[in-house]
Amino acid sequence: MKIINLDQIKAVLPEIDLMQEIEAGFAAYSKGRAVVPPVGELVLQDPPGEVHIKYGYITGDEYYVIKIASGFYENPKLGLPSGNGLMLLFNQKTGVPCAALLDEAFLTDIRTAVAGAIAAKYLAPSSVSSIGILGTGVQARLQLQYLAPVTECREVVVWGRDQAKLDIYQSEMSATGYSVTTTMNQEDVLRNCNLIVTTTPATTPVLHWLDDIKHGIHITAVGSDTVDKQELDFATMNRADRIVADSISQCLLRGEIHQALDHGVIERNEITELGAVINGDAPGRTSDDQVTVADLTGVAVQDMQIAKAVFRSIIGDS
Amino acid sequence: MKIINLDQIKAVLPEIDLMQEIEAGFAAYSKGRAVVPPVGELVLQDPPGEVHIKYGYITGDEYYVIKIASGFYENPKLGLPSGNGLMLLFNQKTGVPCAALLDEAFLTDIRTAVAGAIAAKYLAPSSVSSIGILGTGVQARLQLQYLAPVTECREVVVWGRDQAKLDIYQSEMSATGYSVTTTMNQEDVLRNCNLIVTTTPATTPVLHWLDDIKHGIHITAVGSDTVDKQELDFATMNRADRIVADSISQCLLRGEIHQALDHGVIERNEITELGAVINGDAPGRTSDDQVTVADLTGVAVQDMQIAKAVFRSIIGDS
Repeated sequence: MKIINLDQIKAVLPEIDLMQEIEAGFAAYSKGRAVVPPVGELVLQDPPGEVHIKYGYITGDEYYVIKIASGFYENPKLGLPSGNGLMLLFNQKTGVPCAALLDEAFLTDIRTAVAGAIAAKYLAPSSVSSIGILGTGVQARLQLQYLAPVTECREVVVWGRDQAKLDIYQSEMSATGYSVTTTMNQEDVLRNCNLIVTTTPATTPVLHWLDDIKHGIHITAVGSDTVDKQELDFATMNRADRIVADSISQCLLRGEIHQALDHGVIERNEITELGAVINGDAPGRTSDDQVTVADLTGVAVQDMQIAKAVFRSIIGDS
Repeated sequence: MKIINLDQIKAVLPEIDLMQEIEAGFAAYSKGRAVVPPVGELVLQDPPGEVHIKYGYITGDEYYVIKIASGFYENPKLGLPSGNGLMLLFNQKTGVPCAALLDEAFLTDIRTAVAGAIAAKYLAPSSVSSIGILGTGVQARLQLQYLAPVTECREVVVWGRDQAKLDIYQSEMSATGYSVTTTMNQEDVLRNCNLIVTTTPATTPVLHWLDDIKHGIHITAVGSDTVDKQELDFATMNRADRIVADSISQCLLRGEIHQALDHGVIERNEITELGAVINGDAPGRTSDDQVTVADLTGVAVQDMQIAKAVFRSIIGDS
């Protein structure tokens, strides 16, 4: 069993076409070629923490993958990042462990950002005027970074509750080639942007729809991955012309779609799967004035694809 | 993160009081002090294989543990053992990975055998005349090995379907101090033994009750750990004066109890939990002429306890 550390992972990442790998994963998933059991979850109380176990395989593939990712939100008090974890690859024909990628949750962050870029590629209006980002954390940065190859837009409006964090974000992301405006009023994001990414761990909505918004918008919600979290208000979900789940079965239980279904705001048959859009089996955006929502709860198939790609790159089998 | 291989694990195992560690685990579990989510399961088709993910923690403990164990039953054709896997320990307060025990499923085998010994300690008749073993595989050997400190009985009747395998078993186990008789007729086991352990992966019963059996017997069923497997016929379950589950919640979904409940042979309120018997919160055997059944499906708390004990022993924190 190969033990691969974070430096080794970071070293090979630039060699990998992550968009292609993860698109292929969503495509296989929506074609029914992936086996992805329900997410395993461990909740800790003192201090509060949550652990997700996401696992599965693509039929006929070389490996199955088990990903463990944790969030302990009081870790920063101890000088530790809140996220941690690892990914394990096993031989699909024998169960023999092949590799442990000690990624410290880094690959979970990356594959989440890549999924956001894929959602934007398929669902954003043809011309993005300004990108709106809600949140100022790791995903707020990575989403922007991975959107760069997908859109030529370099205008950003970032929303947060803490001006100091907004300022740091503005400074850091400006250095990567974006023109960043900060705001503490979410209306500024809705009014000025037509590609919005929500990246918060909110349990009450941070994006509230405004009835006088008439332009088309695509919204990718990446923050909500549990039963309780919610970033988009029901008016937004109700307004959406197209609602796309990374995994319909998972979004029935977690995330924005789960919340909206549970409250009768949307119907089950309104939901499309991202892989089906990629495969051309379901329509994505059909006009620039539509409002589309992608609810990304994080599917094991993303972990499987990034783990395999990293491992193959490291062992020179790419 | 410490990476610990099988040789290191085997080296420290004799230093550990496994009975005490795993009894303490069952006791904590039945006191409600353990958090053990439902077992994660991945089923593979070509070739057939199954992967179990068992995980959880004891409240206030230092670690949480995730155990992965696979069974690929065509592996022997490739010269590989059918079982494989590993155990992971994480800091319960931060999620930081602490250790990977690359045990190749060895610790799963051991903790299963130890649970059998614990069941016999609490449930076997006061004087064991002869031990019956159904099956001739790894558990058939380990159960006998771990029963040695629990009973003075050294008489064994072993049942199997393959005389060659029975002969090898007889030869090997005789060398460890047992007097072993082989049989291909399960009646011989029921008639001659009052402590029986079934260790097969059977999906149709291998133990069929005989109405003229009048002596007390304890039966531990360790082979059945999925929805489909079943070793004991319904007459045996129906006859039992006491039915003990390693985990009631898990046995409602898997194993002998699941099968018998599903077919209306037993009632939910007839089931006792092993930890409750250990804690003195529920009666175990109350007379030597009773028939008792322990259904061991394998609970994460066993994995947690053995993983922690091995890790502590290796880092010198015991």
